[in-house]
Amino acid sequence: MAKKAAPLSPLAPTGGFPRIPAIGGVTLAAGAAGVRYRDRPDVVLGVLPEGTTVAGVLTRSKSASAPVQWCRHNLEGGHARALVVNAGNANAFTGAVGERSVKRTAEAAAALLGVSPGEVFIASTGVIGEPLPEQRIIDVLPALKGGLKPEGFEAAARAIMTTDTFAKGASRRVRIGNATVTIAGFCKGAGMIAPNMGTLLTFLFTDARLPADVLQACLVRAVNKSFNCISIDGDTSTSDTCLLFATGAVGAAQPAIEGLDDPNLTEFRRGLNKVCRELAQLVVRDGEGASKFVTIRVNGATCKKSARKLGLSVAGSPLVKTAVAGQDPNWGRIVAALGKAGEPMDQNLLRIWIGGLPVAENGARHPAYDEAALARHMKGQEIEIEIELGLGSGACTVWTCDLTHGYIDVNADYRS
Amino acid sequence: MAKKAAPLSPLAPTGGFPRIPAIGGVTLAAGAAGVRYRDRPDVVLGVLPEGTTVAGVLTRSKSASAPVQWCRHNLEGGHARALVVNAGNANAFTGAVGERSVKRTAEAAAALLGVSPGEVFIASTGVIGEPLPEQRIIDVLPALKGGLKPEGFEAAARAIMTTDTFAKGASRRVRIGNATVTIAGFCKGAGMIAPNMGTLLTFLFTDARLPADVLQACLVRAVNKSFNCISIDGDTSTSDTCLLFATGAVGAAQPAIEGLDDPNLTEFRRGLNKVCRELAQLVVRDGEGASKFVTIRVNGATCKKSARKLGLSVAGSPLVKTAVAGQDPNWGRIVAALGKAGEPMDQNLLRIWIGGLPVAENGARHPAYDEAALARHMKGQEIEIEIELGLGSGACTVWTCDLTHGYIDVNADYRS
Repeated sequence: MAKKAAPLSPLAPTGGFPRIPAIGGVTLAAGAAGVRYRDRPDVVLGVLPEGTTVAGVLTRSKSASAPVQWCRHNLEGGHARALVVNAGNANAFTGAVGERSVKRTAEAAAALLGVSPGEVFIASTGVIGEPLPEQRIIDVLPALKGGLKPEGFEAAARAIMTTDTFAKGASRRVRIGNATVTIAGFCKGAGMIAPNMGTLLTFLFTDARLPADVLQACLVRAVNKSFNCISIDGDTSTSDTCLLFATGAVGAAQPAIEGLDDPNLTEFRRGLNKVCRELAQLVVRDGEGASKFVTIRVNGATCKKSARKLGLSVAGSPLVKTAVAGQDPNWGRIVAALGKAGEPMDQNLLRIWIGGLPVAENGARHPAYDEAALARHMKGQEIEIEIELGLGSGACTVWTCDLTHGYIDVNADYRS
Repeated sequence: MAKKAAPLSPLAPTGGFPRIPAIGGVTLAAGAAGVRYRDRPDVVLGVLPEGTTVAGVLTRSKSASAPVQWCRHNLEGGHARALVVNAGNANAFTGAVGERSVKRTAEAAAALLGVSPGEVFIASTGVIGEPLPEQRIIDVLPALKGGLKPEGFEAAARAIMTTDTFAKGASRRVRIGNATVTIAGFCKGAGMIAPNMGTLLTFLFTDARLPADVLQACLVRAVNKSFNCISIDGDTSTSDTCLLFATGAVGAAQPAIEGLDDPNLTEFRRGLNKVCRELAQLVVRDGEGASKFVTIRVNGATCKKSARKLGLSVAGSPLVKTAVAGQDPNWGRIVAALGKAGEPMDQNLLRIWIGGLPVAENGARHPAYDEAALARHMKGQEIEIEIELGLGSGACTVWTCDLTHGYIDVNADYRS
């Protein structure tokens, strides 16, 4: 696995990795275990203080990986003390061997840190169907433990990259009652799956003190507005994992939160939504071969779910995505993509704008359609598509990138 | 619209367009109306004898074109006397103007031929959202009428091409009772949609004498096993149309058929299935940028529908399709694509073969996995994937092609 690194995505944010403040109680370390890649960090150890609650959203794939199944089981307990992540091998479709491999890794981390294996969360990304050499990971855990520090976010984000061209992180400070808490996270894309590598992995941390069930409810809502609103190529991974850890290190300064509707939780929920949205957008900006970032706003659908389905149908259409790559304001393909979604829609009520310019209305091309102005917008790097269904108040914004030769280059390349 | 013609697909059948016998009562003519293309035939007129019954399967898109809506209405009558098809403009998302345009064309053809507009069927393929200059079509109808002949299949198949690189036709002779009847058809692909051009159009003809409801039942079943089992890019067109005309010219030699289960109909149904399957496979062989033809056999699913959904999930996966393009026997992507289909599946029962070679079993890579032998198969032009779910007796075969730079070239190209 000695591949030439892909050049930095043209859509990468300027300024590099953001400054992320330490989260009370969270320490991280990254190291090189040589799972598959050589000469680069590929394993992350995260350690969390006693009392940390955890929430998670995992892939719905019927061929979910062994680590995903492990996390699904441990999430029932609601508590976490450690996180072990590796890149290079997804430990997916590896059968009983793969399950043993996760268990051995978790038990080794648990023994090293003096916690229970049921509180150790595992995530893996990389090649599918090859046994994971977990001993390589276990061997570096003691060294990682020695290197744990509160400012390890950037190194951790870098160690879990596969075909990503930049490390992805985001954070927000919010108030719960009179206490200030921090929400921070890092993730990897999303090419969506490189030569048999794959997966969206996201790890979020906060020093807030929240019961696991409330944390879970917050996370599900945030994921539905962020990671579930992006599409690179429509291929769902066997290993998609998003975990949120709340250490409670903020202490008694924060009022206790009992339920999702507690008014003291409003700002936290908004902050979490923003961190998730920022990370999700970074994933799109690093889509394999992406040269344009596309925002699709859907309004006037019969409900929110319908709006998302319509938006994702447009975002996932290879014909829309190649048209964007070709700088073609090809709104006919948007109409076709909406039509195939199977959601309520009336051609005669539909209105479409590209870059704020009207293109369709009353079941036909808009009278003020201005191809030259549209062509100018399509030459830009940020493409905006707005769709009004005229049926109800369901709204959703989704994000995607274009489909270019770069995608074929990355994915039609032989694995070894 | 002066585009360089794409080179002939490497998957095109050798021997060119097949010899298709005349179908009793059917005459066809093709001509150049200059709808959008210059200097090539772009309109087809088909004329059918009195008593011809008709069946049709039309796009389920919510943004169906004006001609599709016209055909949907006329199919209720069950009778047909004429067919007018054009390439270059789909007359889709053209509002009330588009509806008038279809009506004017049908009325002109009806007046010219002395039939009712309710028996004139219209299909259009091409750019979406631009008003169709139907007068250009109407103007050439008299000349087309003068040129009608029974052997017009190849010319008709050629005139409806958009990004197709070869004309597509197929036929079979079968017996109904002691009478021999012919089933023949032509179609266009399926790039799936070229620079705003699009659509799968199929026209089938037979001299059998069949009631419209029986014809419809036969056609739905044939389409479900053929055109509904292929995937180029997962983008459903606004204009997909498949029509089957039965002239009854075979006469009294054929026993009357009352229902779908009539034993005298068995051979006809098989023949229709074969013609449809052959045409559907030709569409895949002419997929935009295709360099490999992929057959995916799914067995052991819980039911037939589930098998088709699982097969199409693999066939539609950009990651599977780019892996095939890269000659990579990347079976992990097949597992991932099956997993995302949302259909019943058990990793531990799943078995996969590529080119007849076992790759996966018991939830893991097969012990006899032979990467070198697999690589040899992947270098070929015909790729075979076999999937055994081990859950039931649901089976389905689907067909697709690889996803290459050629697809991006065709579709990221500006329309004009």
